Amino acid sequence: MTIKVSVIGASGYVGGELLRILLTHRDVEIVNATSRQHAGEYVHKVHPNLKGMTNLKFSGEDAVAAAAKADVAFLALPHKASVQVVPKLMETGVRIIDMSADYRLKDPGKYVEWYGYAHPYPDLLKKFVYGLPELHREELRGAKYVSAPGCMAASAIIGLAPLMKAFEATGPIVVDAKIGSSGAGGKPSPSTHFSERFGVIRPYKPAGHRHAAEIEQELSIVSGRDIKVAMSAHAVNIVRGILTTSHVFLTEAPTQQQLWKAYRDMYGSEPFVRFMMDRTGLYRYPDPKVVIGSNFADVGFAVESRLKRVIALSAIDNLIKGAAGSAVQSMNLMFGLDEREGLNVPAIHPV
Amino acid sequence: MTIKVSVIGASGYVGGELLRILLTHRDVEIVNATSRQHAGEYVHKVHPNLKGMTNLKFSGEDAVAAAAKADVAFLALPHKASVQVVPKLMETGVRIIDMSADYRLKDPGKYVEWYGYAHPYPDLLKKFVYGLPELHREELRGAKYVSAPGCMAASAIIGLAPLMKAFEATGPIVVDAKIGSSGAGGKPSPSTHFSERFGVIRPYKPAGHRHAAEIEQELSIVSGRDIKVAMSAHAVNIVRGILTTSHVFLTEAPTQQQLWKAYRDMYGSEPFVRFMMDRTGLYRYPDPKVVIGSNFADVGFAVESRLKRVIALSAIDNLIKGAAGSAVQSMNLMFGLDEREGLNVPAIHPV
Amino acid sequence: MTIKVSVIGASGYVGGELLRILLTHRDVEIVNATSRQHAGEYVHKVHPNLKGMTNLKFSGEDAVAAAAKADVAFLALPHKASVQVVPKLMETGVRIIDMSADYRLKDPGKYVEWYGYAHPYPDLLKKFVYGLPELHREELRGAKYVSAPGCMAASAIIGLAPLMKAFEATGPIVVDAKIGSSGAGGKPSPSTHFSERFGVIRPYKPAGHRHAAEIEQELSIVSGRDIKVAMSAHAVNIVRGILTTSHVFLTEAPTQQQLWKAYRDMYGSEPFVRFMMDRTGLYRYPDPKVVIGSNFADVGFAVESRLKRVIALSAIDNLIKGAAGSAVQSMNLMFGLDEREGLNVPAIHPV
Amino acid sequence: MTIKVSVIGASGYVGGELLRILLTHRDVEIVNATSRQHAGEYVHKVHPNLKGMTNLKFSGEDAVAAAAKADVAFLALPHKASVQVVPKLMETGVRIIDMSADYRLKDPGKYVEWYGYAHPYPDLLKKFVYGLPELHREELRGAKYVSAPGCMAASAIIGLAPLMKAFEATGPIVVDAKIGSSGAGGKPSPSTHFSERFGVIRPYKPAGHRHAAEIEQELSIVSGRDIKVAMSAHAVNIVRGILTTSHVFLTEAPTQQQLWKAYRDMYGSEPFVRFMMDRTGLYRYPDPKVVIGSNFADVGFAVESRLKRVIALSAIDNLIKGAAGSAVQSMNLMFGLDEREGLNVPAIHPV
Repeated sequence: MTIKVSVIGASGYVGGELLRILLTHRDVEIVNATSRQHAGEYVHKVHPNLKGMTNLKFSGEDAVAAAAKADVAFLALPHKASVQVVPKLMETGVRIIDMSADYRLKDPGKYVEWYGYAHPYPDLLKKFVYGLPELHREELRGAKYVSAPGCMAASAIIGLAPLMKAFEATGPIVVDAKIGSSGAGGKPSPSTHFSERFGVIRPYKPAGHRHAAEIEQELSIVSGRDIKVAMSAHAVNIVRGILTTSHVFLTEAPTQQQLWKAYRDMYGSEPFVRFMMDRTGLYRYPDPKVVIGSNFADVGFAVESRLKRVIALSAIDNLIKGAAGSAVQSMNLMFGLDEREGLNVPAIHPV
Repeated sequence: MTIKVSVIGASGYVGGELLRILLTHRDVEIVNATSRQHAGEYVHKVHPNLKGMTNLKFSGEDAVAAAAKADVAFLALPHKASVQVVPKLMETGVRIIDMSADYRLKDPGKYVEWYGYAHPYPDLLKKFVYGLPELHREELRGAKYVSAPGCMAASAIIGLAPLMKAFEATGPIVVDAKIGSSGAGGKPSPSTHFSERFGVIRPYKPAGHRHAAEIEQELSIVSGRDIKVAMSAHAVNIVRGILTTSHVFLTEAPTQQQLWKAYRDMYGSEPFVRFMMDRTGLYRYPDPKVVIGSNFADVGFAVESRLKRVIALSAIDNLIKGAAGSAVQSMNLMFGLDEREGLNVPAIHPV
Repeated sequence: MTIKVSVIGASGYVGGELLRILLTHRDVEIVNATSRQHAGEYVHKVHPNLKGMTNLKFSGEDAVAAAAKADVAFLALPHKASVQVVPKLMETGVRIIDMSADYRLKDPGKYVEWYGYAHPYPDLLKKFVYGLPELHREELRGAKYVSAPGCMAASAIIGLAPLMKAFEATGPIVVDAKIGSSGAGGKPSPSTHFSERFGVIRPYKPAGHRHAAEIEQELSIVSGRDIKVAMSAHAVNIVRGILTTSHVFLTEAPTQQQLWKAYRDMYGSEPFVRFMMDRTGLYRYPDPKVVIGSNFADVGFAVESRLKRVIALSAIDNLIKGAAGSAVQSMNLMFGLDEREGLNVPAIHPV
Repeated sequence: MTIKVSVIGASGYVGGELLRILLTHRDVEIVNATSRQHAGEYVHKVHPNLKGMTNLKFSGEDAVAAAAKADVAFLALPHKASVQVVPKLMETGVRIIDMSADYRLKDPGKYVEWYGYAHPYPDLLKKFVYGLPELHREELRGAKYVSAPGCMAASAIIGLAPLMKAFEATGPIVVDAKIGSSGAGGKPSPSTHFSERFGVIRPYKPAGHRHAAEIEQELSIVSGRDIKVAMSAHAVNIVRGILTTSHVFLTEAPTQQQLWKAYRDMYGSEPFVRFMMDRTGLYRYPDPKVVIGSNFADVGFAVESRLKRVIALSAIDNLIKGAAGSAVQSMNLMFGLDEREGLNVPAIHPV
């Protein structure tokens, strides 16, 4: 089987990462990669790592025309651009994997609360499956519309889901996220100027980060309780990678065995979740350094008994498991392929 | 006035930083800098930045002999080495500024709980002033024995003290700390090997970090309540700098005005505390990047009303405000000098 | 066809990179990976990126026993360890790809001059093919013994070969090399301690770098002249990657067309050489940043007519094209496989 | 004595560094710091490291009005902006230290050759002293007009001058320069976007770098010969610092003693030149890491006898010795002050 794929908005970092992964996918043909700004240019002028791998050029077609040639369209468009494109694509019958936040939240009211606008197509929200195979594998099989998770959300949710499912927290979950620069995209600005960005530990969204909305949604579903997330995001001195440190206070301090059971029950046979819990060695806890270039999510935990605190740690490559990788994994499920196809590669280490 | 200073254990990073600052201090004469391992070598062989600034050589004298020539001795010795040295130095009449944790905690029981040993000189603990001028200025004036704070403790305490004094938290304070490599000292190990250390976001002590003990001690004093601190420490891809992100849940969400008042009341005339709270610009929140090379502590906060959460942010140079700088500031107070002498220099930016 | 592969000395960075690449190679079965120090441990304890990709454990077998099970043995041993192992392996009939310098130089006298010892098996040197497919493709097809190039040598030779073949230099070639930390291996030392290594531009071998010997050998062969190389090596603030800047003075300044012709004639159909020469864009010249994780060598040049100088630039990932990648590419040629198998993946960008 | 200083164009990195140094200078009063774009804003909004050190605001005055209040004006204006400002300032009688290239070259023809324009005031060029105290100390004493050197030029000239004075090269000098991002200034662009700039070894000017013109000028003066410089510049993964590696081929290989004599004769009593030549330790050669934050220039050399090559190494902080530091040192000489005033501080290490 060859799946015809269109990448709409392929000039950003998420678009580039989709192309990189899809180029090595054995069952995929990239029928077009669109970019208004770079129409007609070689893809490798914008994504220099793809030079020598493809002679594809950016197409200037609009989303509908481009997607018409494809079985599935990945939308890697800026914030709020997908909102209007999705209904038009739906009419063409193409399957959709949207990389934006525009169709991630089930409750239309949350768009008002977190994103500051009334969603114009509230009825369409429920047609989308949240594209995290670890939580929604069965729904993704055969799904027509998928909304890929936010990068920090993906990390936090994967790290917390087993804990939230098995134990009851006494209050809001503190999600302290640390992320590299690529999460902010490819557009220069004073805050991304190398001399100003190098070496920072910059709290860029100590309160009100929008990914909290989807973390709350997903953890509430998995736990059957109303979970609140107190999130703070920090930019650190790397390009790729996220670590989420989630602090959870429970009514009783769990034992190591109970925690292991919770994580094994949920992730024991996940192809892309690794338990990074070791008594010796350098990588005793999750650290994004050892997932860079791969679709793995590394999870681990620690317990502070005296405070009944569990620290749930999770590390991913924000552009892969936090974006393009989870999206391709979802695509594989949608089309009944081996879930690992195109993604079954180790991280690059050391890098 | 010229103060004669001895630096005991001067070959580590804290020792080097003490020497660097003291060399530019107008009222100080460094009478010796000891190092068993490097006795007889030029100080600048170990601290190459001091080349051209001093021809001092490391002395191989023991602590008592070295301190006998001085008005004040800085002890920059490894963990648990100061315990036995301090009583001997006390007999000589020299003033002491200890950089280790050995005399930081007032309650001897805490040494059993956090450090795993029974303190052999519990009666001496109360003779030491905790060397954070922002909290103990009056005690430091004329003090004879000072214990300099732990680097992450200094950051967390400065960031939280006004909040803890003015408001009541509903549970443990989450202190999520991020720190550069220099906090781990100058000794090579597999975990500090560049190829393995570069690019990490490494949770190296998610639970049980010992600095929590002194943070709890100091915040309990300042607030008059029994404060518990849920601390997690992470190593990030820089050499110098700490950011502590402290998550505090209150019974009511405070207003911005209330918070500003709390911080201004406490720090309004502090020479080395800056409020990094701006609606525009790159440095809207504290970020260690802009304190590197200086004794400043930058503080700021954010509020998430829906969860009654305050995020207290604090950034310092771990080797200066988190060690040598606070120690020299304490020395200035001990000897009745201008508190800023030797420390009144801006950070280096960009770096 | 399945090739049985043994990796002798698999716990270092080159060994780990060989394993990473071989694990995704469709025609390879790794029969063992030896490490005396880590015998019995999971490979992923040492190479954490391989966790989830393999359950292989390090074997404690000696080289002969391990290689006896294989069609080809990669020797990733420390400097001078291969010298004695090679003759023993030869007796077993196994093919050998040696990653060390021990069998790279054809002239035994050069081992005295550059490495300071008399090679004990001078007659064996000529049995080895220098494992750079761009220069020795035909010899590699069916070769039994291959010596993989030094990482900086690979970069310099690939960057200079077309120039040396087509033009005559007036004196020694200046090869100014810049390299990341992984080239120094995985063993901690004061010079690799993160706090001391971070941010350096450290000239670690301004004169006398041993890779000069093989660069001279290979460029002399390709040009038919006696080429001398004035090499200087610098460590810079990255983990992976090499840039070699080679300064060549010619009798006449060549035109752009003449230079393009020289490079195209030699590399026009090379699968892993890319011309990074563009009038616009960020990547107008080779830069290791855009080859990381791939087997590509990026080449480019500039001309300063007034001085009749050509600057030949070349960028590689030191652990791939500079080591494991070229070795696997050589293996593919030895066994008549598609040269790109296992290596046909794009670089990771941005990272 | 208090010198009244005006900094014209104070919002860039060089302007910020001038302010930082001048704020700690005991004989200086900053009368104004101009910036059209930031007129009326606090200086520390743009230079966050100066917060807490000064309440100065940017002045919107034009250069003539601002300089009229001062004894000396530092011009930290963009390329080609000083050309027209200088003659106007000259009429006011103010002393001038120009940080740009506009008055660095003595030969007007070089502006056509290297900068592509005919200098409109060729007669003024000779009125300026090239602001490198190591070469022009006597001229700087009492000078009225000074042109501060280019950052890479300062490094290369200091590293090469003793060699060029004492020995005769057989051809052009290869100057291979490596520099941090701050040399490119504070304005965001695609090439300075963190995700694209991080981790590079980017050859940004392999031929034709304009600093070659002033290196040739100064080395020709010091040697009495017509020196040609084959320069190539590279951006590396740091913010501050330059290393220049200069490759010089001589008619005879000099001995270590001859080289030491050449360097000692010239720099034996220089306050800001250090010899970084050691047989042991980490810092056996110059490395910008250990000069960051200081006005030191570290020099060293190596010899490759077989090729009669000397490698002259030089490391500086590009914003200090390569700009603001040399300028303040020149100012001190102009006004008869202790040359070290405001600059007599060690580097920050480790950082």
